[in-house]
Amino acid sequence: MSTKTTLLYSYWRSSCSYRVRIALNLKGIAYEIKPVDLMKGKGDQHHEDYKKVNPLQKVPALEINGHTLVESLNIMHFLEETQPQPPLMPSDIFKRSKVREICEMIQSGIQPLQNMGVLSHIEALAGKEKPLEWAQHWIVNGFKAVEKQLTAYPGKYCVGDDVTLADCCLVPQVYNAKRYKVDMAQFPTIMRIDNELKTLPAFHAAHPFNQPDCVTVNK
Amino acid sequence: MSTKTTLLYSYWRSSCSYRVRIALNLKGIAYEIKPVDLMKGKGDQHHEDYKKVNPLQKVPALEINGHTLVESLNIMHFLEETQPQPPLMPSDIFKRSKVREICEMIQSGIQPLQNMGVLSHIEALAGKEKPLEWAQHWIVNGFKAVEKQLTAYPGKYCVGDDVTLADCCLVPQVYNAKRYKVDMAQFPTIMRIDNELKTLPAFHAAHPFNQPDCVTVNK
Repeated sequence: MSTKTTLLYSYWRSSCSYRVRIALNLKGIAYEIKPVDLMKGKGDQHHEDYKKVNPLQKVPALEINGHTLVESLNIMHFLEETQPQPPLMPSDIFKRSKVREICEMIQSGIQPLQNMGVLSHIEALAGKEKPLEWAQHWIVNGFKAVEKQLTAYPGKYCVGDDVTLADCCLVPQVYNAKRYKVDMAQFPTIMRIDNELKTLPAFHAAHPFNQPDCVTVNK
Repeated sequence: MSTKTTLLYSYWRSSCSYRVRIALNLKGIAYEIKPVDLMKGKGDQHHEDYKKVNPLQKVPALEINGHTLVESLNIMHFLEETQPQPPLMPSDIFKRSKVREICEMIQSGIQPLQNMGVLSHIEALAGKEKPLEWAQHWIVNGFKAVEKQLTAYPGKYCVGDDVTLADCCLVPQVYNAKRYKVDMAQFPTIMRIDNELKTLPAFHAAHPFNQPDCVTVNK
């Protein structure tokens, strides 16, 4: 392995950056945060310097061993494949499938519909009252499905009693839900698991409020 | 392995069902299609009988060896893990990452923003002229990024000269783009790869028009 510093290009409030921060912390991988301010001017992700890192102009991006990786779930699976201990995927084939299922329900079923880019398009289309309602609708819709699946599957965390990549996706999505004032009392299993996970140091350290670029006035 | 029939709950035009059909065909796994008509009445996916198969009321769902799997990428990775030949993931760790990256760009960056459920919400919010424009915007936006990544990566297909899960995602998304009248001439690398893939029997057999539930009048 190279001795180069591992760099995470991250925005404190980006839930996709948050997922990767949790996974890096759980794996015990030392990394340096390179903040990319999505709210500054037209967004630092569109700056020429950042385009050289990630031509897709998105966060997160991970520089590791001379390679730059993008897309959050891809990065997390790369970490799992290259540094298997401690495992964030079960060895059982059906449990692995369950982890991927929960990740996918959040990653493709909820997050893309309530990110900043989409909400600004909703505002342009239908007025400034609509983005909040839109975000709430898709988070509630997606979390109803996630709640159903989690309730049917016993365990301390999303899939059994060990922390997995599904947990790395769940906690940032709950953070988003709260930002958008979703009534989380309707999702008791999600909240039980979120509360368990929040006690773990890896999750605590990855929280948006604990990032170097966190703008405290917006907390 | 069980001798039970493998059943794919599928809708001919669903791009997520289409991805899984391609992967099953490439793996040479015999399966029976159980059509779920998303357009019939309120949608057969909400019927009580189907809720017993998939409480999430979505397609695809795969019944295999007594288990029911949901979420398309999850199903495809399950097939890869349980039936590794022929491989749809490279063995090289960085090529694997590249495959997951392309899959994720389509699966979370494009498809969720242009599916039927989202478009009907856009129509309710902004009128019946808007869904087409909305779908085109997000497909073009996402395909610009995919085109950039594919052009930077040499090979006959998405990632090198072997067919991978990335190709299983690309072709159905190109099908959707054409349905929504996106000008595909602006994406020459995507079109080159799509044209290569369409010559393969596994892709041809999985095409919406070749499904038992295809409504020919809508072709």
